[in-house]
Amino acid sequence: MSNPLVGIIMGSDSDLKVMSAAAEILEKFEIPFEVTIVSAHRTPHRMVEYAGQAVGRGIKVIIAGAGGAAHLPGMVASLTTLPVIGVPVKSSNSIDGWDSVLSILQMPSGIPVATVALNGAANAGILAANIIGAYDEHVSNKLSEYKQELSDKVLTAVDKIER
Amino acid sequence: MSNPLVGIIMGSDSDLKVMSAAAEILEKFEIPFEVTIVSAHRTPHRMVEYAGQAVGRGIKVIIAGAGGAAHLPGMVASLTTLPVIGVPVKSSNSIDGWDSVLSILQMPSGIPVATVALNGAANAGILAANIIGAYDEHVSNKLSEYKQELSDKVLTAVDKIER
Amino acid sequence: MSNPLVGIIMGSDSDLKVMSAAAEILEKFEIPFEVTIVSAHRTPHRMVEYAGQAVGRGIKVIIAGAGGAAHLPGMVASLTTLPVIGVPVKSSNSIDGWDSVLSILQMPSGIPVATVALNGAANAGILAANIIGAYDEHVSNKLSEYKQELSDKVLTAVDKIER
Amino acid sequence: MSNPLVGIIMGSDSDLKVMSAAAEILEKFEIPFEVTIVSAHRTPHRMVEYAGQAVGRGIKVIIAGAGGAAHLPGMVASLTTLPVIGVPVKSSNSIDGWDSVLSILQMPSGIPVATVALNGAANAGILAANIIGAYDEHVSNKLSEYKQELSDKVLTAVDKIER
Amino acid sequence: MSNPLVGIIMGSDSDLKVMSAAAEILEKFEIPFEVTIVSAHRTPHRMVEYAGQAVGRGIKVIIAGAGGAAHLPGMVASLTTLPVIGVPVKSSNSIDGWDSVLSILQMPSGIPVATVALNGAANAGILAANIIGAYDEHVSNKLSEYKQELSDKVLTAVDKIER
Amino acid sequence: MSNPLVGIIMGSDSDLKVMSAAAEILEKFEIPFEVTIVSAHRTPHRMVEYAGQAVGRGIKVIIAGAGGAAHLPGMVASLTTLPVIGVPVKSSNSIDGWDSVLSILQMPSGIPVATVALNGAANAGILAANIIGAYDEHVSNKLSEYKQELSDKVLTAVDKIER
Amino acid sequence: MSNPLVGIIMGSDSDLKVMSAAAEILEKFEIPFEVTIVSAHRTPHRMVEYAGQAVGRGIKVIIAGAGGAAHLPGMVASLTTLPVIGVPVKSSNSIDGWDSVLSILQMPSGIPVATVALNGAANAGILAANIIGAYDEHVSNKLSEYKQELSDKVLTAVDKIER
Amino acid sequence: MSNPLVGIIMGSDSDLKVMSAAAEILEKFEIPFEVTIVSAHRTPHRMVEYAGQAVGRGIKVIIAGAGGAAHLPGMVASLTTLPVIGVPVKSSNSIDGWDSVLSILQMPSGIPVATVALNGAANAGILAANIIGAYDEHVSNKLSEYKQELSDKVLTAVDKIER
Repeated sequence: MSNPLVGIIMGSDSDLKVMSAAAEILEKFEIPFEVTIVSAHRTPHRMVEYAGQAVGRGIKVIIAGAGGAAHLPGMVASLTTLPVIGVPVKSSNSIDGWDSVLSILQMPSGIPVATVALNGAANAGILAANIIGAYDEHVSNKLSEYKQELSDKVLTAVDKIER
Repeated sequence: MSNPLVGIIMGSDSDLKVMSAAAEILEKFEIPFEVTIVSAHRTPHRMVEYAGQAVGRGIKVIIAGAGGAAHLPGMVASLTTLPVIGVPVKSSNSIDGWDSVLSILQMPSGIPVATVALNGAANAGILAANIIGAYDEHVSNKLSEYKQELSDKVLTAVDKIER
Repeated sequence: MSNPLVGIIMGSDSDLKVMSAAAEILEKFEIPFEVTIVSAHRTPHRMVEYAGQAVGRGIKVIIAGAGGAAHLPGMVASLTTLPVIGVPVKSSNSIDGWDSVLSILQMPSGIPVATVALNGAANAGILAANIIGAYDEHVSNKLSEYKQELSDKVLTAVDKIER
Repeated sequence: MSNPLVGIIMGSDSDLKVMSAAAEILEKFEIPFEVTIVSAHRTPHRMVEYAGQAVGRGIKVIIAGAGGAAHLPGMVASLTTLPVIGVPVKSSNSIDGWDSVLSILQMPSGIPVATVALNGAANAGILAANIIGAYDEHVSNKLSEYKQELSDKVLTAVDKIER
Repeated sequence: MSNPLVGIIMGSDSDLKVMSAAAEILEKFEIPFEVTIVSAHRTPHRMVEYAGQAVGRGIKVIIAGAGGAAHLPGMVASLTTLPVIGVPVKSSNSIDGWDSVLSILQMPSGIPVATVALNGAANAGILAANIIGAYDEHVSNKLSEYKQELSDKVLTAVDKIER
Repeated sequence: MSNPLVGIIMGSDSDLKVMSAAAEILEKFEIPFEVTIVSAHRTPHRMVEYAGQAVGRGIKVIIAGAGGAAHLPGMVASLTTLPVIGVPVKSSNSIDGWDSVLSILQMPSGIPVATVALNGAANAGILAANIIGAYDEHVSNKLSEYKQELSDKVLTAVDKIER
Repeated sequence: MSNPLVGIIMGSDSDLKVMSAAAEILEKFEIPFEVTIVSAHRTPHRMVEYAGQAVGRGIKVIIAGAGGAAHLPGMVASLTTLPVIGVPVKSSNSIDGWDSVLSILQMPSGIPVATVALNGAANAGILAANIIGAYDEHVSNKLSEYKQELSDKVLTAVDKIER
Repeated sequence: MSNPLVGIIMGSDSDLKVMSAAAEILEKFEIPFEVTIVSAHRTPHRMVEYAGQAVGRGIKVIIAGAGGAAHLPGMVASLTTLPVIGVPVKSSNSIDGWDSVLSILQMPSGIPVATVALNGAANAGILAANIIGAYDEHVSNKLSEYKQELSDKVLTAVDKIER
């Protein structure tokens, strides 16, 4: 695979079952990516290093997933000028997902995180494609096709339900 | 000003006092933008038109702010392949902001909105700069300077408080 | 069946298991209806078309069900003068139903949605009957009988429990 | 005024400052209405009487506003076959409006209340007009004009903001 | 059994699996009681009658359980001078119990309901005993013995856990 | 005044502006009472003593108000067989009253607290009268008169609003 | 085992399956501890005694777990000068854990409880070790090793995921 | 002042009006401390440095206050073996404090933060004293005196209110 444009990171390998949906979307859109584990709380120095080197390695977008008191997306955003997409994961220790959502979304002025829905890793992948597609016509066309697919699936369901 | 790269839209002119912070940030980062009112509920056809033409007009990022049952960001996202940044506005009819946040954040799989904090219009501007800066070194450098400014302000406060 | 008076629409065929309760009620009350899929986010142009043509097709009430960031009921309400009944669906991506409820209920001034309880599709059907029954004595009588049935069931349970 | 088609009731005269918006809308749409106080908890027998006689008096829609543990809309709905629109009022004893919303919205299967947004009395008036307009072309036309007005106001704001 | 001192009522026989715990406690404390179904929404006239006759029938305390938009306890309280204990039931249509709790607890000034914990029917039974025990030494002694039992169970658990 | 039948206690003198409404109601109903400060956290031994002696001193009902992590009502209930009415106070350190409500309402099985609405001290007074009135005809008659007053006030408001 | 430095208490033996994680951590860190049941509501006098004697018995930290209206941690804190760590337990009677969290966390000024995450008994054990480790180099070294273990586990997962 | 035993840090000088209460308590208890600004998001490298050097500088407890998506306490805890007390600050950008509370409290297993009440900086100071007092008799005695003061204030209020 060519150099990754998107870095998908998560706080724990237990988040992988949610976060793999982001990877599947990027594969579908033929956008090169990498996947790894970076824990804000268990490997803080690795997190500082990862975030600090991302621009230089050619990464365009970072997707970071975490649950509970989810500090990874916001901390990475504090350490890079790249857009960081945060995926609130409804982990086993989360209070119905509210902690994951609020600790990613409610960033202070100056350090935004592009937050998607709870467990919305597929949408994180699409948002990364939206960003890259704004500058890359191949990806933009793939996105248009994808929108058409979504619409076609609805129309197929319409046919079934109305018959 | 040259052709706008960012479109800032909002559901009502009463949202302007919150949303103008996005415009100020883009001015600071020397990113051309436009500001207008597009109401999902009062001008739905205008919304369809605006979203449908954005790519063709050279827009790279759309920032959409709305409050209460806030449908503008998600509906625009359904009508474009561009990244859409949603700003939940704590409008006068909102229940402490929860409706604004949830109706922007919790988009279904396939149509993401990059949601920022409640009333976080400044962060929406910075996130737009993060996106553009991933492909534009001038903006990227501006972002690095901005991060330095944020840090310098903290250190100045440290000096005052520790003296 | 004669021309439909009620249009039951939903954002996805996965909502059908909840929304079919509305159809069952309308059948019981002998009110002609139609059921189809109209997705605000995946088929926005279909939604505009559906809502715009409903009055002309003789529809009197639209029942719209959706979950998560549920924009369908409110967007349809923005595009028609008919009463729109919104059913918040507790879909798999919903945060305990709060997003579904708030993004349907908290509509801005000017564009109401008649919101019923979470997953309350049966009540949406009854509410449509209440509306039609205000102008149609046959339906009004059916509603009176239905109220009697509800009461009779309680009294039967009373007999069982007190014996 | 001719016989009222809409009955606007509320639990306390302190709700009048919120509920009068419903009356203003109905005046605008030239729909005859009545306004009175009916308390579920302080005048339960009056409530039973009011709800029981509404159909016979020619009322087509009841708008009921209440706050806190708001039982008026649901109890009235249990006593009539007419559509009942519930307005959750953020009264002084309410916990941020959540009690008002939930005790009106979450009605059990069989007895729906058409709930509008917190303090959404204007929308209750419009919804009553939607219902009546489905059977009355004069009101339907008024609603179309009203939608045009809402749109025009947005376009006027657009002109101001873009200049 | 002698004349009932406590009336246990509930909105639906589906609440019986929760509410029977109140009956078991009253049996244990040898307090005569009755159990029946009284639905605020499906049998409103029966509710008015039940509440209106309770004092005359020698009832001292009413325990009322209901879920969702739970109006039974508050409506009964509006129709009697007896203390009414409300049990919020987490019914199948409830949003995690919040609607049940708030629509029972948040009664307006003038008409209190003595609310116990979600699904806390056993505690409703004990509270009824607290009330009756304030005037009846036999019940008061039973309550003292019960407190001792609760304490003894803890001490037995202590023995097991510390060994 | 004769021996108090109701003990009104609260965690702090700052709660007095809320809790005095309970005293006013009891005065109106001519029920003798006492008012004092008993802090669960600052005077735990005084609390144990107060609760332990209440029955012997002829108290029939204890009304306990507290805010934030409000332990006073529940702890007093653990130390007496009397009915304890808990008033959740929206104190300055409370998160919108939710902590006060939940830490009073959600008592474990075995130790009920009769919880009233947030800041509902007047209702606590009325509930105490409901309890005493179940055994005292004078108080019961006062309660009937009070219900009539509430109703009369509504009818006076009706006259004003309908004129 | 030598004299316990940490007392682990809980309101009920049903909390043991959560709270045993605290004991396991203390064993791992070789810190002597004791485990017992102390119920605020069922054994209030035992609680007063336990809290009052803890300092004299050489205890340095108390870990208290409870659910629902969880008064044990705060009441113990009111009766000792030792640091009290509170573990909100998501017990069967809890409303999604919110009652447990708020009734432990939101203590009034003067009587803190060191609250950890919902069901966070392992973290309570580590926090006790943090406290003891501030004065005991052996424990401090164990904590450094533990942090290294956490980091190593992440790196092992990285190896697996990146391969 | 001798070498600080407690480090009070906060994310912004705007938090100082809340956090200064911690400093006042430590002064009262004669515990040496330092106060400074350390922003997780604006000065991440300074945060890593501060947390990494605290043990070596003789600090025994760190008190960290932050609001919104509050990452400072948890990130500092990930970088030191000292006990970290987190103060959720209800900052201007916070959603009623829920984000501040959850993003500090809900730390993952392995990295605890001792969380106190919203804006509970005074309690953070007392908790630091509880910790130090477990190993320092002078501070322990000060804490006993402080508890006596709290109790005396209640008794003085009792005298006023009962007179």
